[in-house]
Amino acid sequence: MPVIQPVVDLVDILVQQGLSHAVISPGSRSAAITLAFARNQAVKTLVSIDERSAGYIALGLATELGKPVAVVCPSGTAAYNLAPAVAEAFFSQVPLLVITADRPAEWIHQQDGQTIYQRDIYGRHVKASLELPTDDHPPDIIWHTNRVANEAYLTASCYPLGPVHLNVPIREPFYPLESEEYIPRRNRIIRSLSVQPDLSLADWHTLQEEWEDAGKILIAGGQGPANPQLTEILGKITEEWEIPVLGDVTSNLGNHPDFISMQDIALLPDDADSLRPDLLVTFGESLLSKKFRNFIRKFPPKKHWHIGNGTHLTDSLQSLTLRIPVAPVHFFAKMLEDIDFKSFVENRALFDGAYKNEWLRRDREAARVVSESIEENLTSLNDLSSIKILASLLEEADLVHLGNSMPVRYANILKRLGLRQEIRANRGTSGIDGCVSTAIGSALATDRKVFLIVGDVTFLYDRNGFLLEEFPSNLKILVLNNGGGHIFRMIDGPTRQPELGTYFETRHHFNAESTVREAGLRYFSVKEASHLEARIGEFVQHKGAALLEVFTDPDANKKVYSAIQEAYRKLRSN
Amino acid sequence: MPVIQPVVDLVDILVQQGLSHAVISPGSRSAAITLAFARNQAVKTLVSIDERSAGYIALGLATELGKPVAVVCPSGTAAYNLAPAVAEAFFSQVPLLVITADRPAEWIHQQDGQTIYQRDIYGRHVKASLELPTDDHPPDIIWHTNRVANEAYLTASCYPLGPVHLNVPIREPFYPLESEEYIPRRNRIIRSLSVQPDLSLADWHTLQEEWEDAGKILIAGGQGPANPQLTEILGKITEEWEIPVLGDVTSNLGNHPDFISMQDIALLPDDADSLRPDLLVTFGESLLSKKFRNFIRKFPPKKHWHIGNGTHLTDSLQSLTLRIPVAPVHFFAKMLEDIDFKSFVENRALFDGAYKNEWLRRDREAARVVSESIEENLTSLNDLSSIKILASLLEEADLVHLGNSMPVRYANILKRLGLRQEIRANRGTSGIDGCVSTAIGSALATDRKVFLIVGDVTFLYDRNGFLLEEFPSNLKILVLNNGGGHIFRMIDGPTRQPELGTYFETRHHFNAESTVREAGLRYFSVKEASHLEARIGEFVQHKGAALLEVFTDPDANKKVYSAIQEAYRKLRSN
Repeated sequence: MPVIQPVVDLVDILVQQGLSHAVISPGSRSAAITLAFARNQAVKTLVSIDERSAGYIALGLATELGKPVAVVCPSGTAAYNLAPAVAEAFFSQVPLLVITADRPAEWIHQQDGQTIYQRDIYGRHVKASLELPTDDHPPDIIWHTNRVANEAYLTASCYPLGPVHLNVPIREPFYPLESEEYIPRRNRIIRSLSVQPDLSLADWHTLQEEWEDAGKILIAGGQGPANPQLTEILGKITEEWEIPVLGDVTSNLGNHPDFISMQDIALLPDDADSLRPDLLVTFGESLLSKKFRNFIRKFPPKKHWHIGNGTHLTDSLQSLTLRIPVAPVHFFAKMLEDIDFKSFVENRALFDGAYKNEWLRRDREAARVVSESIEENLTSLNDLSSIKILASLLEEADLVHLGNSMPVRYANILKRLGLRQEIRANRGTSGIDGCVSTAIGSALATDRKVFLIVGDVTFLYDRNGFLLEEFPSNLKILVLNNGGGHIFRMIDGPTRQPELGTYFETRHHFNAESTVREAGLRYFSVKEASHLEARIGEFVQHKGAALLEVFTDPDANKKVYSAIQEAYRKLRSN
Repeated sequence: MPVIQPVVDLVDILVQQGLSHAVISPGSRSAAITLAFARNQAVKTLVSIDERSAGYIALGLATELGKPVAVVCPSGTAAYNLAPAVAEAFFSQVPLLVITADRPAEWIHQQDGQTIYQRDIYGRHVKASLELPTDDHPPDIIWHTNRVANEAYLTASCYPLGPVHLNVPIREPFYPLESEEYIPRRNRIIRSLSVQPDLSLADWHTLQEEWEDAGKILIAGGQGPANPQLTEILGKITEEWEIPVLGDVTSNLGNHPDFISMQDIALLPDDADSLRPDLLVTFGESLLSKKFRNFIRKFPPKKHWHIGNGTHLTDSLQSLTLRIPVAPVHFFAKMLEDIDFKSFVENRALFDGAYKNEWLRRDREAARVVSESIEENLTSLNDLSSIKILASLLEEADLVHLGNSMPVRYANILKRLGLRQEIRANRGTSGIDGCVSTAIGSALATDRKVFLIVGDVTFLYDRNGFLLEEFPSNLKILVLNNGGGHIFRMIDGPTRQPELGTYFETRHHFNAESTVREAGLRYFSVKEASHLEARIGEFVQHKGAALLEVFTDPDANKKVYSAIQEAYRKLRSN
């Protein structure tokens, strides 16, 4: 049997289906797969020695490209190192094609090296767990190989998108002889049409009636990529119908001046009467603002519709009454059109603006307070002022990645203050383990400038993303180094514990400099507030990849954060 | 309900059972567990921000201590980052207690952060998958918590040792109030007596008869810790009965001059007639030497007994005929005593020395060839001479960790040339992902000097093991930096592929210096052969932790390795 013919066929099928990128970690068991990818001119390959980073780089690529990206690893614990990225891909619906080389089944648990139980290794975190046949006879096996290859790609790329595991048992010899002939043939592929779910006319009518009778309607978007068409429709809805539209920084709803984004500051306990909706309409993935989530859980609306054609029943606000499994853009466009037409025919106004104005007033007040508090604290080196200055220098077309833990929280209260870029963040599992590598993958897939804002622990955790031969020149990283897991100082519980420094913040003396310099990137740092603005300017202007490390003062960060909350409470109690 | 009482009880039970060490990664969901460990004076805790490293550090500790070590992480992908170490612990039978904080079951897959499917997440790679109750009522729940805590420790620590997963769902609030009272009470623990499996007298008699009638007997030890009693008995067996005893460097059989260790060089295809055993007796975990494994597979003995009280049926040599599930030391001691007594009574000699002498002659010839080839190549910087010089400077009580890939292969052909130390290597899964962290864990558990010999890719992969506040002062690391995954140049297949440099060796420009310096260790390096001996001397003499990076020449390495094989073939063909 030719060593690489089956995997050459596999790669041909994936390429015909649309695959264009593969991230590869080296290994002997996977040699034939590696060669098959390397020798297919239609695939752009990238080598990463650490599979954990490889997985997240592939995730970043796939998110940006909006289609499956392959990640290839040898057998053994290599497969487990991909698991964090697989879980993130599953919960954030990113199409990863995870191709793991394996020993043939009869060699599992026989004291041979780099062998673990790889079948179904990702548990419930994949859309499908497939396996190529080990051998190439009888003839039905060829057909089976073809079908599995087609199935892997189609399953990853049909809605809801997500990771697929393809386990590939491989016998020795691993490497083809120089004399080995293999045929770069064009294999049969199976195409699949995509479908759009829709509702019956009767259901549309019912929904329209309920909508018109609902009273206070609030629309809230969870995480999702930018969608200009959706932004436009939601803009019209908030303008014409005076319905407040609320989004986190990760919702990428766009920059309509009436969209609400300051809920992480603006919501106070006594807002129940004025801000509680009668009908809450949500769409997208997870809602970032914990204050908003707790607000809805505490003051549930009469009705809560969630729009989105997923299949898993998610009720994270504990108030869901109706699942509407169609695409959000389809839902809002149809509602807007039909109700507008109906109200035009009936010649009546639909909504008054009082409810929206309540939200808008608080949103603008909170924005002003945040802005003032940051201005007042420009003499200290703190995270919020760093992000705000950076935001003011970015172009709208730039892409911003946010690390988990504090950066994503900070950014959420800066939306109204100039953070107008499309935002990415690993919010499927909210892990800190792949934020650097994901941004690298993202930068590799786009010509846009990519900015990653990340804390020091998150940076250090994923520094192996830097072990690449060529770093993307369009990636710039802002590290907010407060010498530890800063989030623990910012929330209430840990600061009460005597163990704060050692066990939660894990205060450390590491920084990004050596990692960055050995990778050949330009390194900037700031240790004095008076240099902050100039240094961020140099960093943004610098041609090519760079990292700016701002050594912020943990106490100053806490002070600004507290000052904002305090000032807002004070304003509202007047 | 008090926030931390249940986990305070958990930790108390583990400590009463014998737990003394915990490796902790910081997080909010796991805060109560962290505090319970930190506040129990009987537990030594260590903080590592990267769970992958934390897992392997715990593995190193548990291997050295010979009893369960806890590793604690927050919820989400953190748990998956522990998976590589869990798999290694499973296949190498190391008792890890993997304690993962989790959300309560009703919050899984509800778009909340850091939440994945954690139940049974390690699949078949744990001895047991347990979960603490989420709440503390009704009263049976208290009993359940107690039992699960006891079960976790007892399961990890009974034979065969291995990892146990304890998932701990935790509700908010995560942090106890300052006013919260918890009782550091002494909980009931359940002890378990340990048992020794034994055979019936009838079976012992049968075995003894078969042994005496077997003809050529060969004993081969797989991976295992040093066991002086076993070494002594096997020494007597090879002296008195002239039975060859063969061990890899990872077998830790000790330094008897008659033990065979050069099989990776000494076995040639035409050795079938003279070296093939009639009865092969194996014990321990995996056999390192691929040449020996292939030799036995190709020329199977008439009978193959495997001694060891595991339960999984392993037949990696494809020749097993009898499993004898008792402890090796018990088996060999009993055979020696009974047969010696019988032969004394019957006044007859048991074995002639011809078969052992065949093995011994080849072993010594191979050792001479290796030694000469290394001597001849001292003018180039190569891996083998580096290891040999290091070995000559170590004390017998030192502990040596070998990285996977090349170092463990090199060491296996140096056993007879002065590598007399006890050897550790992650050969359960043979991964490169945790070799640095495992050595760190090992060094933390012992007062012995610990030396790690590791390749550059393996070092870089696991460099996050260095993200500790205090590095163990008794650990020294030799990095053999040949600028890539060197193993791919040493084996036959990849060198035939034009993709060698990019996709297999992954040639790179990184080295260990920056990682080492920022961690505050002393860094030595060698780039010229003439400095090698002196620099290794300084490195060994240096007080405190240090790393020596030898920049070896890939082609020189290949040359020495080939020269050895060639010289031996030539010697044998004369």
